[in-house]
Amino acid sequence: MTTDNNVQVSVLGLGAMGGALAGALVRAGYTTTVWNRTPGKADDLVAQGAKAAATAGDAVRSGGLVIVCLLDHTSVHEVLDPLSTELAGRTLINVTTTSPAQSRELAAWAAQAGVAYLDGGIMAVPNMIGRPGASILYSGSADVFDRYKPLLDQWGTSTYFGEDAGLASLYDLALLAGMYVMFAGFMHGAAMVSPAGVTAGEFATMAAPWLTAMTGAFEGFAAVIDGGDYTVEGQQSLEFSNLDGLLTASSAQGIGTEVVSMVQRLIQRQIDAGHGKEGFARIIESIKQPG
Amino acid sequence: MTTDNNVQVSVLGLGAMGGALAGALVRAGYTTTVWNRTPGKADDLVAQGAKAAATAGDAVRSGGLVIVCLLDHTSVHEVLDPLSTELAGRTLINVTTTSPAQSRELAAWAAQAGVAYLDGGIMAVPNMIGRPGASILYSGSADVFDRYKPLLDQWGTSTYFGEDAGLASLYDLALLAGMYVMFAGFMHGAAMVSPAGVTAGEFATMAAPWLTAMTGAFEGFAAVIDGGDYTVEGQQSLEFSNLDGLLTASSAQGIGTEVVSMVQRLIQRQIDAGHGKEGFARIIESIKQPG
Repeated sequence: MTTDNNVQVSVLGLGAMGGALAGALVRAGYTTTVWNRTPGKADDLVAQGAKAAATAGDAVRSGGLVIVCLLDHTSVHEVLDPLSTELAGRTLINVTTTSPAQSRELAAWAAQAGVAYLDGGIMAVPNMIGRPGASILYSGSADVFDRYKPLLDQWGTSTYFGEDAGLASLYDLALLAGMYVMFAGFMHGAAMVSPAGVTAGEFATMAAPWLTAMTGAFEGFAAVIDGGDYTVEGQQSLEFSNLDGLLTASSAQGIGTEVVSMVQRLIQRQIDAGHGKEGFARIIESIKQPG
Repeated sequence: MTTDNNVQVSVLGLGAMGGALAGALVRAGYTTTVWNRTPGKADDLVAQGAKAAATAGDAVRSGGLVIVCLLDHTSVHEVLDPLSTELAGRTLINVTTTSPAQSRELAAWAAQAGVAYLDGGIMAVPNMIGRPGASILYSGSADVFDRYKPLLDQWGTSTYFGEDAGLASLYDLALLAGMYVMFAGFMHGAAMVSPAGVTAGEFATMAAPWLTAMTGAFEGFAAVIDGGDYTVEGQQSLEFSNLDGLLTASSAQGIGTEVVSMVQRLIQRQIDAGHGKEGFARIIESIKQPG
């Protein structure tokens, strides 16, 4: 399944994620050199056909494309700072988990060193890499993304967001925020029904299709938010979105209310500001302009 | 599309939801009598073939099955208390929005009056009634549910939860909790990317499939919760679920952090109690036993 024999790729960092990324490239037939700070992590990959480099410098010199998947932003600088000369003229794709500000800083560092830079945010766990459902977000150099897309597609669905290197990380974090908050909502619901003898498994079979259906509301909320007019007709009003019954019923079940109270506060601040008859989507203003 | 010509059904309450429910029955060919406290609401339904009753008592006496969809629990008692003699021997299906405790109270009232009682929780807005996606949850008399299921199915997917009349309302509220909290998570994500020039619409096209995919995690969380052992392998640990980066990036975007901080607190309380190496699903314990 070799897609481009001419690409000589090096992978720095063979933790669970780096190892999964390198493995997918080896299996796809790419000439792959691997390096890890502590030895031993490369053995399985070498058995599959990868070359192990003794130093990060050796790994960088052996290929035109360098993939970095390290612990954090600090680790990336520790490994790459001494190699700026070797990296000049090469291409760097950094999929280490970093903040938007850190991604932009690395992009500026790379520009200074004459290195083409693409930043990636991985929306998957290691064992999803190369399998359906894995999604990787990219931003930074469009040229790099376009040139190496066949290689990137070995890992999962590749989506490019723009030249601002911080965008992929920002999207990544924004989607993770949605996920963690949704998980808390699921847990609240499961905790509510539990005292009535309903198992979390029974609740999950109702909650998964229900919340999936309700993601259908995002588009309508977004149209209102992007339109900037929260008074357009056909919306559920903030006043109608009264969560008192939910809070009372939660307390009656003997469980905590802080998960739902969080939403109630977002609603109430908009009502207090005189917007009670406007649409529910207006709660985003409580987040954009915290009280 | 008549499914059972022998059913004589009365609908009390013709607000947006009651009117939608009555309309679906009229269109399905049921002999339907309608009543509303304030006149004029029945005109459209009468034009479609419904009979209008002058009083709630007339409506009850005209059929064996009485559907009640009023403003709230108090309204239900105001309308039904004077009619307990007429209701005896008849069947009452109450789809008014009530708390689990109120549903149980009405079930007890009905039992005392010799009325077969089924409670319903409508997971739909009025214009979804009778169309794909409408879901109505029921609990109370299994006999009533089984007998009238063809009629109930005219409104949407009918699901029965058990003899405890409060169960449907409890499920309804638990699912709504999940929905409102998920909406807040979506809004947080949209607020995060907004300063980078990403529209809410662009974010929605990423967030809807992403959160849909992530509902796939509920089943795994539920298995851990129901198993009662948060140390089973293969889970993301609470310590690994560090939201500091998310909070820092949110603050860097100039937006509030209270949505994500809520989740962080649920995680932190479990870590503080010594469970940091256990699975993320353990956050449900922070809800079940609030600090």
